Amino acid sequence: MTELFQARTVQEARELLASHIRISCPVERVPLLEALGRRLGKDIGAPDDVPGFDRSTMDGFAVRAGDTFGASDSLPAYLDVGGEVFVGREPAGGLSAGQAWRIPTGGMLPPGADAVVMVEHTEELDHRTIGVNKPVAPGDHVVRAGEDITAGTTLLALGHVIRPQDLGLLSAAGATEVSVTGRPKVGIVSTGDEVVEPALKPGPGQVRDVNSYVLYGQALAYGARPEIRGIVRDDFDLLLNVLRRAVAECDLVLLSGGSSVGTGDVASKALDTLGPPGVLFHGISIKPGKPTVGAVVRGKPVFGLPGHPVSAMVVFELLVAPLLKYGGYMEDFLEFSVKARLKRNMRSAPGREDYIRVRLGLENGEFVADPVLGKSGIINTMVRAGGLARIPAGKEGVEAGEYVGVKLF
Amino acid sequence: MTELFQARTVQEARELLASHIRISCPVERVPLLEALGRRLGKDIGAPDDVPGFDRSTMDGFAVRAGDTFGASDSLPAYLDVGGEVFVGREPAGGLSAGQAWRIPTGGMLPPGADAVVMVEHTEELDHRTIGVNKPVAPGDHVVRAGEDITAGTTLLALGHVIRPQDLGLLSAAGATEVSVTGRPKVGIVSTGDEVVEPALKPGPGQVRDVNSYVLYGQALAYGARPEIRGIVRDDFDLLLNVLRRAVAECDLVLLSGGSSVGTGDVASKALDTLGPPGVLFHGISIKPGKPTVGAVVRGKPVFGLPGHPVSAMVVFELLVAPLLKYGGYMEDFLEFSVKARLKRNMRSAPGREDYIRVRLGLENGEFVADPVLGKSGIINTMVRAGGLARIPAGKEGVEAGEYVGVKLF
Repeated sequence: MTELFQARTVQEARELLASHIRISCPVERVPLLEALGRRLGKDIGAPDDVPGFDRSTMDGFAVRAGDTFGASDSLPAYLDVGGEVFVGREPAGGLSAGQAWRIPTGGMLPPGADAVVMVEHTEELDHRTIGVNKPVAPGDHVVRAGEDITAGTTLLALGHVIRPQDLGLLSAAGATEVSVTGRPKVGIVSTGDEVVEPALKPGPGQVRDVNSYVLYGQALAYGARPEIRGIVRDDFDLLLNVLRRAVAECDLVLLSGGSSVGTGDVASKALDTLGPPGVLFHGISIKPGKPTVGAVVRGKPVFGLPGHPVSAMVVFELLVAPLLKYGGYMEDFLEFSVKARLKRNMRSAPGREDYIRVRLGLENGEFVADPVLGKSGIINTMVRAGGLARIPAGKEGVEAGEYVGVKLF
Repeated sequence: MTELFQARTVQEARELLASHIRISCPVERVPLLEALGRRLGKDIGAPDDVPGFDRSTMDGFAVRAGDTFGASDSLPAYLDVGGEVFVGREPAGGLSAGQAWRIPTGGMLPPGADAVVMVEHTEELDHRTIGVNKPVAPGDHVVRAGEDITAGTTLLALGHVIRPQDLGLLSAAGATEVSVTGRPKVGIVSTGDEVVEPALKPGPGQVRDVNSYVLYGQALAYGARPEIRGIVRDDFDLLLNVLRRAVAECDLVLLSGGSSVGTGDVASKALDTLGPPGVLFHGISIKPGKPTVGAVVRGKPVFGLPGHPVSAMVVFELLVAPLLKYGGYMEDFLEFSVKARLKRNMRSAPGREDYIRVRLGLENGEFVADPVLGKSGIINTMVRAGGLARIPAGKEGVEAGEYVGVKLF
């Protein structure tokens, strides 16, 4: 039990969790238009070539490139107009040597043609003859059959999160339905004797629930189905009951601790009583967010998040968000991707990762990050901030003017 | 009419559109949990202070700071334990000079107290007396009444897009319902004689609709209600009818041009026949995306987007996305916020903005952007890319190793 109370690094916490978590959201089929932001439940293959034919990207003439070699303004290549291609239709015949066929953008090249001359580089001598004054190489102004999608290849791999352009790729391949991973159900429980529903007017000593709403928003933003399961008094049996039901009905459970003196113990004991393997760590070496409890119950992750809303939000981003988005702790090198100069010195402790709320600005063409100072119990500091800057564990602080990596939110 | 055909810069196009656009989505009340990503329809004020009382952020003793001045390990300040505060309840009395009250994290300070001594800095001499071995200043370990939210101030302003932390601020203020701007309805029309529904197997010369699905995804990602209104043959009367109905029923209309030779003209003529003021510009000085038509019909924006999916996607990000997200062309200095070194030389033309599909990587601790080369008709290039790098209009290109701003997607 003593080892549990040794604070873990974020990396250690992730590894501990990963070795015990088995989230199993069944794969489901959804219509293409409902697939945005979902994670593919299996590889998607390409049944056919796209386009299915050599396609012109310009208005002009389909030709054999060889017939235009050496053509110039002073010595055009003269070609017979052999036919015309209409968009959406198969050309009525093939192209012979010395011929040019009129073709619009998107038109199908007639058999025998291997390039398109732009209309700007031709002159019409009469109804049956054109002069080409610039040579083309085979493939010029043509999208070849299968150039966008090649039949038999994997279009998108299992686990890929679908973006707008992926919808386009899937529609091009005729995938009007796709198999995606079910959206995990996230149960959110708040605890604390002083916490009341937002609809109520707090009495003396009471405050409205903040964490449930922040966590709801974060879970929703990361594609989960969040469910607020209410505020529980600071009582072991009550808490255990509510958590048991939440673990049974959800894929992942977030308990955000109240801040009364006994809660830490009560919450942690309840988390450890739910089932094996139970609590894996108690405390992570970050600021804010240190008093985090990580547990797994028969494969399902259950987090005891700090009661301070800023801390709960930071821990969610680090330990919960990757599970919802990727199903695991993928390395995302683009997470703190905005490089900004810190506007003032910020101290840290070696061995501890610090996350600083910052407001971003632009000075002399560079991003600057101005720390929003304030206690981690003050949600307004998160609202006034536009991002979170990270001071890595190895540093004792960052001086004004140094670069930090910022995650926008 | 000739001026229309002079390509506009992105900035000019935005200004022209802005001077004619009046999108009027009625403000609606939604439950707090449905407000994520929505734009506030009016300012939200704070009815009360949050917290409503001076609140301890630590487990310890509430004191008068003055009673601890000069305290040290060798010379502790001795205080009488005058009472105990319970979380969520009003203290049963006030604190007198020389007293300390037990208080848990989140507890309400008794009247007369102005600071909290952490339990770690006290020693219990007997049941009624403690020694304080470290002085505190007034306000130490206390969140003062109104420190998070001050009654009467504006919490969030009209137009603000609601993030997870904003849900927390709103719940803290008791705002269980909020007024938000209605989600604009975006009508999406594709045109082209060669374009068929994704459910169909394309015949010779035919391709499946890609743009409708990419644009649907983009519109959805930016909080709109997109609606695919089908594929229209390349015929002026048909197109005009479909567009008329779309303009009547939607707040914003996207026509993505087919690529047949006549379409450009037909689409542009139809866009100019819908109503005043009609087409505002024809062509913008960007690559890809040049053949874009911008029109406004009785205040509603109607865009004729290029047929090539990469071009349509880029133009959407530049001209459509800000309207959906902010209701106008706000300057967003964080849009191309990832600074990366370009991996190869890329040429541009002065006076033209270039948008380059890039794959991002990390080399020597710096981001690198590797251009994904390919024709703008190839949707797969957008799928293989992770972002869009911008070459500003003033430059003739970017050399390998130079920094570019990248927007992730």
